[in-house]
Amino acid sequence: MKPWEAYYRSVTPYVPGEQPQGARLIKLNTNENPYPPAPGVARALKELDASALRKYPDPAASELTAALAGYHGLAPEQIFVGVGSDDVLGMAFLTFFNSGKPVLFPDVTYSFYPVWAELFGVPYETVPLDESFQIRPEDYARENGGVLFPNPNAPTGCYLPLEQVEAILRLNRDVAVIVDEAYIDFGGTSARELLDRYENLLVVRTFSKSRSLAGMRIGYAMGAPSLIRAMQNVKYSYNSYTMDLPSIRLGVESIKDEAYFRETVGRITATRERAKERFRGLGFVCTDSMANFLFVRHEKVPAEELFEVLREQQIYVRHFRGPRVSDYLRVTVGTEEEMEALFQFLGSYVSRR
Amino acid sequence: MKPWEAYYRSVTPYVPGEQPQGARLIKLNTNENPYPPAPGVARALKELDASALRKYPDPAASELTAALAGYHGLAPEQIFVGVGSDDVLGMAFLTFFNSGKPVLFPDVTYSFYPVWAELFGVPYETVPLDESFQIRPEDYARENGGVLFPNPNAPTGCYLPLEQVEAILRLNRDVAVIVDEAYIDFGGTSARELLDRYENLLVVRTFSKSRSLAGMRIGYAMGAPSLIRAMQNVKYSYNSYTMDLPSIRLGVESIKDEAYFRETVGRITATRERAKERFRGLGFVCTDSMANFLFVRHEKVPAEELFEVLREQQIYVRHFRGPRVSDYLRVTVGTEEEMEALFQFLGSYVSRR
Repeated sequence: MKPWEAYYRSVTPYVPGEQPQGARLIKLNTNENPYPPAPGVARALKELDASALRKYPDPAASELTAALAGYHGLAPEQIFVGVGSDDVLGMAFLTFFNSGKPVLFPDVTYSFYPVWAELFGVPYETVPLDESFQIRPEDYARENGGVLFPNPNAPTGCYLPLEQVEAILRLNRDVAVIVDEAYIDFGGTSARELLDRYENLLVVRTFSKSRSLAGMRIGYAMGAPSLIRAMQNVKYSYNSYTMDLPSIRLGVESIKDEAYFRETVGRITATRERAKERFRGLGFVCTDSMANFLFVRHEKVPAEELFEVLREQQIYVRHFRGPRVSDYLRVTVGTEEEMEALFQFLGSYVSRR
Repeated sequence: MKPWEAYYRSVTPYVPGEQPQGARLIKLNTNENPYPPAPGVARALKELDASALRKYPDPAASELTAALAGYHGLAPEQIFVGVGSDDVLGMAFLTFFNSGKPVLFPDVTYSFYPVWAELFGVPYETVPLDESFQIRPEDYARENGGVLFPNPNAPTGCYLPLEQVEAILRLNRDVAVIVDEAYIDFGGTSARELLDRYENLLVVRTFSKSRSLAGMRIGYAMGAPSLIRAMQNVKYSYNSYTMDLPSIRLGVESIKDEAYFRETVGRITATRERAKERFRGLGFVCTDSMANFLFVRHEKVPAEELFEVLREQQIYVRHFRGPRVSDYLRVTVGTEEEMEALFQFLGSYVSRR
């Protein structure tokens, strides 16, 4: 080892899903939206003036912040924007979790949470979900340095009703509580409604799933002005200009087209509900996912085997190793045609086993 | 104070230069390029397909990494890309400066360095420049946890010849040494040449100045594969997908057009040299800046006064408070026309004082 290597920060990085290339493949592994972004986004992209790129973007991304504030009925001071919800969540770890006490999050959840904790030296404890993968609010009653969970949860898709989210907030009035709503647009009620009553609540969202803009990296958080200001101070201590000009402009256009948003989200949720029936009909056990993916295991065929045979068919799904989840596959909801191809293959494969 | 506010990370954020809007104003305050990006960048922007944005970008930004590797005659494993050089430098602080010993950088330098140090809890000591704002390599002989300096330096514009950069490296073989070359394209020899011999050297660059792409947020680092891998591990522990699709594509196009790059950089350096003469002719003291800005003070008129009267004329320059620099203005090199307007006003103003 070279001397300077002794001072490297030691981390175990998150491993994102593969990004295989090719026109033929069916990509159901990273919870992308199968439909393109709103037509207004495409128009705004065509209208972008390259010569404007010579200047720094607005560090406050005011145009986007104002659009999001208007959309959610909040003040601009209640909105924080970042380079995808990962940037927003990472910034939240750095900003809020400095008590030295363990932060709590579920044992089965977004696998980035322990990675951020390790990166920034935040102690944490995982809280087991119950046997049906549900969060039990009473488990979050113990002393902690903050609480964090996705709703719907990933990779299970399980939704926690708003009363139970509020139960967690009632038990945790002295620390920041973060609800990661990456998938909320596909089902359930947002904790946005609780913001007026809980000044320690931060609700995090992304444009990557329901708004078909994974390629633009746009995420945001909603919360009391004190929380948002604290995040902004940390952000301005890291990188003043994180949102580039195209992200700001295209994000604004996406927010404007509510009809397209509802239509595409509606198509995805309808496909999801049909897919649940199809999976069950083929002998799969399936959580009642409220997200844009399904979390399934077959009664007889191991998940790893299915993952591999699907891959040979150029159908990419996600398989997580690790306790409690290694029997399952996470399958993004694609188009009706993509799902039909998936079920055609699975039907013939599992019947032959 | 609310209970959770006790756990906020305490920081003193960097304050970026103003981003005033308006067609009339002359903006010489944030070191932007007065010329648009290369024609190929504008074409690539027009050709971007909005429907491709529904997918996550390549987390490795391989296309851009390969283009940069080819441009600099390095292997792709020697290139790290990020959301502007601030992202790259912030990530470098987090990755390399974990020895507990103080990191060294100049007393007069990019004001973000102490901000990152505070944010990530990195101890530091500043090393005074000499009376003509020059770095003295021998001052970097003391024990430290890493060394960092811009070349040319900011906001002075002073360039440190390559032999002296190497002298600093010879004195610091056991820690990471970072040369921040945001402005090197406007003059001087890059430390790129030293990479073969110093495996602890990281050279950081940006597309925001010489490539007219401040609005896209593209920065990168060059170094030995071990350094780059360590940064990537940290990056993948923070946010897997930082470079959005347009940044990757437009970055690649910028690299392709060497002729345009040389032409615009040549125009800026010619304007800079003429501006030095004009400033001196008006009674200003002026460093021999090798960057795309000038660092000037008038023999009689205080900097703060000049800053304010220029602002009233809608001419924005930068004035830094703080020891050693508060007598100076930093003036970005604009177009010939913008500089002419500046000098017309200054000529008449200082003659009346």
